[in-house]
Amino acid sequence: MSQQPSDESILSSQVADCIQDCLNSHTVCLDTAMSLLQKGNNYADPVRILLDCSEVCATNSHFLMRNSPVYGSVLQACAQVCTHCAEVCDEIGETDCANACRASANSSEQMAKLIP
Amino acid sequence: MSQQPSDESILSSQVADCIQDCLNSHTVCLDTAMSLLQKGNNYADPVRILLDCSEVCATNSHFLMRNSPVYGSVLQACAQVCTHCAEVCDEIGETDCANACRASANSSEQMAKLIP
Amino acid sequence: MSQQPSDESILSSQVADCIQDCLNSHTVCLDTAMSLLQKGNNYADPVRILLDCSEVCATNSHFLMRNSPVYGSVLQACAQVCTHCAEVCDEIGETDCANACRASANSSEQMAKLIP
Amino acid sequence: MSQQPSDESILSSQVADCIQDCLNSHTVCLDTAMSLLQKGNNYADPVRILLDCSEVCATNSHFLMRNSPVYGSVLQACAQVCTHCAEVCDEIGETDCANACRASANSSEQMAKLIP
Repeated sequence: MSQQPSDESILSSQVADCIQDCLNSHTVCLDTAMSLLQKGNNYADPVRILLDCSEVCATNSHFLMRNSPVYGSVLQACAQVCTHCAEVCDEIGETDCANACRASANSSEQMAKLIP
Repeated sequence: MSQQPSDESILSSQVADCIQDCLNSHTVCLDTAMSLLQKGNNYADPVRILLDCSEVCATNSHFLMRNSPVYGSVLQACAQVCTHCAEVCDEIGETDCANACRASANSSEQMAKLIP
Repeated sequence: MSQQPSDESILSSQVADCIQDCLNSHTVCLDTAMSLLQKGNNYADPVRILLDCSEVCATNSHFLMRNSPVYGSVLQACAQVCTHCAEVCDEIGETDCANACRASANSSEQMAKLIP
Repeated sequence: MSQQPSDESILSSQVADCIQDCLNSHTVCLDTAMSLLQKGNNYADPVRILLDCSEVCATNSHFLMRNSPVYGSVLQACAQVCTHCAEVCDEIGETDCANACRASANSSEQMAKLIP
């Protein structure tokens, strides 16, 4: 008889994935921001949103690591900022960064739905 | 004839006040967390929420400083976390910290309303 | 007979001043970075060092708030980064930011000397 | 004839490894701090040093990602804090965390030596 994973272990694996996605886009956004910075002033707005996204992803992952009782609103903020950042990255051809942001937007949205 | 402050300067002074309130509760929450940590294990939950609140206040102030195009959701997250943290601080008699958190909750809520 | 301040209270007031100086340059450096970012690509290097300085000042102030047993090396790193950032700010005419960085460089250096 | 990796690509792979080690101990230290926090007041000092170490590892990785011209002193601070944190973790039986801290201490020390 096969063992079913418990609700708790599904949740805990989803938390771990969300943390990983957020740490990944935290890093990719900061890298992309620094690379755009060298390219000059047409990128001032993308650099700013990339710094925003990098920071909110870090904050979100820390809330999840601390198992915060109030992480719902931070998950939603993270999902919104990542979605916006993904669109900006698409427009300027930063596809890898756009994909990283979409992944953390999706994980954060899914997690936010699990909260009662 | 007295000069009326423009809408823009009212906004900009409100942004500056919100940044100041958030930086203040960022500091006060971290101080309070460290002081509770020394007092022992009855304070594990308050310490965690204080670390949460300290971090989201810093993140929120940085979004405002960067004049982020997407700071609305971060303002709301900050307001919710600060409100919760203020209640926890009240329960354990940390009145100064509760007041600091309420101040940044209020500023953040007010600012969030100004966003179209 | 006048009361002499104890060694401990001198130290503790020096810690508080250093935290304040570092939080101040943390803020001023981030503001200056964002303002330079809008001005275009001649400022890529200053923006980067300003982001560095803003972050190490925050980290240093947090180590002091946590009364870390190992803050000596972070104080020294902070002093070096602030000193470098002040020079860069002087070169590009950002005098207020240069002064803020020099203040936190000095406080951090002074504090580092007090550690046995 | 086999292709030798250039000095630059060796450096750049070493930077990437150091960033990865630091992000890893950033995460593991925060996790360990939260788990100790639940265990009560005998762990106040370890929790504090783990928060220190988690933060300096994040700061160090950001300096490397920004390719900061002044990262030498931050690398050294990171190496010292990680070394101390590894010892504290060994004493309380947190072996995984101790290993993570030693890995980032070593990477940071090696990188610091490469700087002219």
